[in-house]
Amino acid sequence: MTGELATELRPASPGAQVAVPGAPVVGMVGAGQLARMTCQAAVGLGIGFRVLAGAAGESAAQVCAGTEIGDYRSAGDLLAFGRDCDVVTFDHEHVPGPHLAALARAGLDVRPGPGALRYAQDKAAMRERMAGLGIPCPRWARVASLDDVRSFAAASGWPVVLKAVTGGYDGKGVWVCRTPDEAMAVLSHGLDLLAEEHVAFERELAVLVARSPAGQAAVYPVVQTVQRDGICREVLAPAPGLAGHRAVAAQELGLVIAGGIGVTGMLAIELFETPAGLLVNELAMRPHNSGHWSIEGARTSQFEQHLRAVLNLPLGSPVMAAPQAVMVNVLGGEDPRLHARLVHVMAADPGVKVHLYGKSVRPGRKVGHVTAVGEDVAELRDRARRAASYLSHGTEEEQPGG
Amino acid sequence: MTGELATELRPASPGAQVAVPGAPVVGMVGAGQLARMTCQAAVGLGIGFRVLAGAAGESAAQVCAGTEIGDYRSAGDLLAFGRDCDVVTFDHEHVPGPHLAALARAGLDVRPGPGALRYAQDKAAMRERMAGLGIPCPRWARVASLDDVRSFAAASGWPVVLKAVTGGYDGKGVWVCRTPDEAMAVLSHGLDLLAEEHVAFERELAVLVARSPAGQAAVYPVVQTVQRDGICREVLAPAPGLAGHRAVAAQELGLVIAGGIGVTGMLAIELFETPAGLLVNELAMRPHNSGHWSIEGARTSQFEQHLRAVLNLPLGSPVMAAPQAVMVNVLGGEDPRLHARLVHVMAADPGVKVHLYGKSVRPGRKVGHVTAVGEDVAELRDRARRAASYLSHGTEEEQPGG
Repeated sequence: MTGELATELRPASPGAQVAVPGAPVVGMVGAGQLARMTCQAAVGLGIGFRVLAGAAGESAAQVCAGTEIGDYRSAGDLLAFGRDCDVVTFDHEHVPGPHLAALARAGLDVRPGPGALRYAQDKAAMRERMAGLGIPCPRWARVASLDDVRSFAAASGWPVVLKAVTGGYDGKGVWVCRTPDEAMAVLSHGLDLLAEEHVAFERELAVLVARSPAGQAAVYPVVQTVQRDGICREVLAPAPGLAGHRAVAAQELGLVIAGGIGVTGMLAIELFETPAGLLVNELAMRPHNSGHWSIEGARTSQFEQHLRAVLNLPLGSPVMAAPQAVMVNVLGGEDPRLHARLVHVMAADPGVKVHLYGKSVRPGRKVGHVTAVGEDVAELRDRARRAASYLSHGTEEEQPGG
Repeated sequence: MTGELATELRPASPGAQVAVPGAPVVGMVGAGQLARMTCQAAVGLGIGFRVLAGAAGESAAQVCAGTEIGDYRSAGDLLAFGRDCDVVTFDHEHVPGPHLAALARAGLDVRPGPGALRYAQDKAAMRERMAGLGIPCPRWARVASLDDVRSFAAASGWPVVLKAVTGGYDGKGVWVCRTPDEAMAVLSHGLDLLAEEHVAFERELAVLVARSPAGQAAVYPVVQTVQRDGICREVLAPAPGLAGHRAVAAQELGLVIAGGIGVTGMLAIELFETPAGLLVNELAMRPHNSGHWSIEGARTSQFEQHLRAVLNLPLGSPVMAAPQAVMVNVLGGEDPRLHARLVHVMAADPGVKVHLYGKSVRPGRKVGHVTAVGEDVAELRDRARRAASYLSHGTEEEQPGG
């Protein structure tokens, strides 16, 4: 064999996703880290899985054998993508509502459906629906002028939280305004806005619910989320020291909302815990950052659960696989050499689980997460923080900027 | 958008596996279920991963974005495949030794290397090496004639186990001969054979060791394996009721063998437990059926561990993630409609974890596995057996043929 020339290999036909006999194909619109981790879960179920990616370099496109390139803002691309799928689902909420409706009219199983997704896309519609379901929310009002904001503040006080009605995520589209001048600066963008009271919460919680078209629902243990600059930084599962009646109330809220809006797939509900009780902050209808801990920490990960739910399969057990799990996000730092730092993290702590998303490193961008699972929340938090901080910055100490 | 024609989507460029900056690419020769599950593990590490598949329909080729089609028996194909990889590893042991040596001479990092892999390919060489390391094995001898077998049996008694020196797996290439006539029938195949004493073992155990080129090693809890017709059916982790000194002895054997043969990656050692102690039965140098439980049952799965080891990354913790894990293989039955049966298994037990391999169903073929994790081995075994049996046959009761 020595000296023999290497031959040219034939790459596998692209998009040739195969599955076990009779298994359906799920198509996920969007190819970020949520689609990437859903792709991992699809492998074990033996189902077909495709992603619609904007470019081949996107997080899920790197690893999914069934990647197609197209634009989620193009109705034609969405229809073409859906044609080869039994169910279409989403790794983000940015597909325009009319396109969703057209997919449904074309006979495609769109899950969650346009009727539910509207409440993740339109914060005013969501608030109205929550009110209709009797769900406690912060006080809110649509605002179009500084006078509107002033009269809202007259009842709720300053600061006032202004939110873009559509298009916000990860703290984008949310402004905490301490003065009328700050509110005026936000109003000047010309966006459709609503005002919300600035809730003096004790901490933020989240509850994850899966719901299938058959109406089966499964609710995960309530978690504590730690946000900074509007970005989720840490998740503690279950929420430490949460009173039993609060945990039950949060899970009941989750089930009422999931059924009330008719969601299929994963629903994440972000909550404020206040001395007076729980208030619903935001909804997301997809696997969610507050559920990444479930890969190692729950019997069924939120990614497998999302697939089971959108396929109308019986749901998996959402119980904890260990007493406690802590997830810390890895945000990009100044130095892109993530893999070189991964080696040191592995050497320092053989027990933490690192998930890297294959995304190019930009300061503050979510490029991975670390999960530690065990008994003692303080120890797990310390370990996950050290690993995440080292991956971000090459030091185990927290950095001011992230 | 209604009435708009669907556009033709552009599939992603095949083989365009990307990774986090500075991350290496692992190429795995072979695209069975071991490569499929290794592919899942590669996603989280943010490394590049490719498989060399014989055809696009193979288990790992269905799900790996970096699939290339070629023949592992062709030196040219192997060289072409290895050219784009930082490390070449294997999901089976069938790559011819001279080809392995040529890959190494071409400057490729072949892990495990040809020197170690020889002991998984050549049972006579393995037995000689074990003897050299002082490892207890069944009595054995090379045999070329019925006279050789008779004289071996004169010392060890009947039955005599005849094994093909090369090419055996999953019970293929192993014959338990109760009489000289049966031995003669095997000898008539003209294969290179060795004879082994028929060990009256109490049960079969397995120990999994990961070893990196730096010499770091990690050993998993010792498991009990249950074989039928030469095929692994169940794995109990850890082995129930195993005496502490036996567990330590098995793990020590594993570490001595891993270091002694200089393996890199996962090494699986199948053992006989006898009243007098442990005997080494077989070696495999790759992730192994006896380690599938580790996906849910250990802090680091054998698939992630194999990647860490062949990349010379620090190894992950091999400790149990729960007190007990039970894995039962799903063998193909008469009816190929696996997915239809999966629905019922999910409904019956939301806590078992099903892994399907995407392989076409043939009677007796390994097409998936089920893992149950928890506290009570009898309960877990019952649940995993019921799920696996239903997936195979559409009934929860064990079938005579499998």
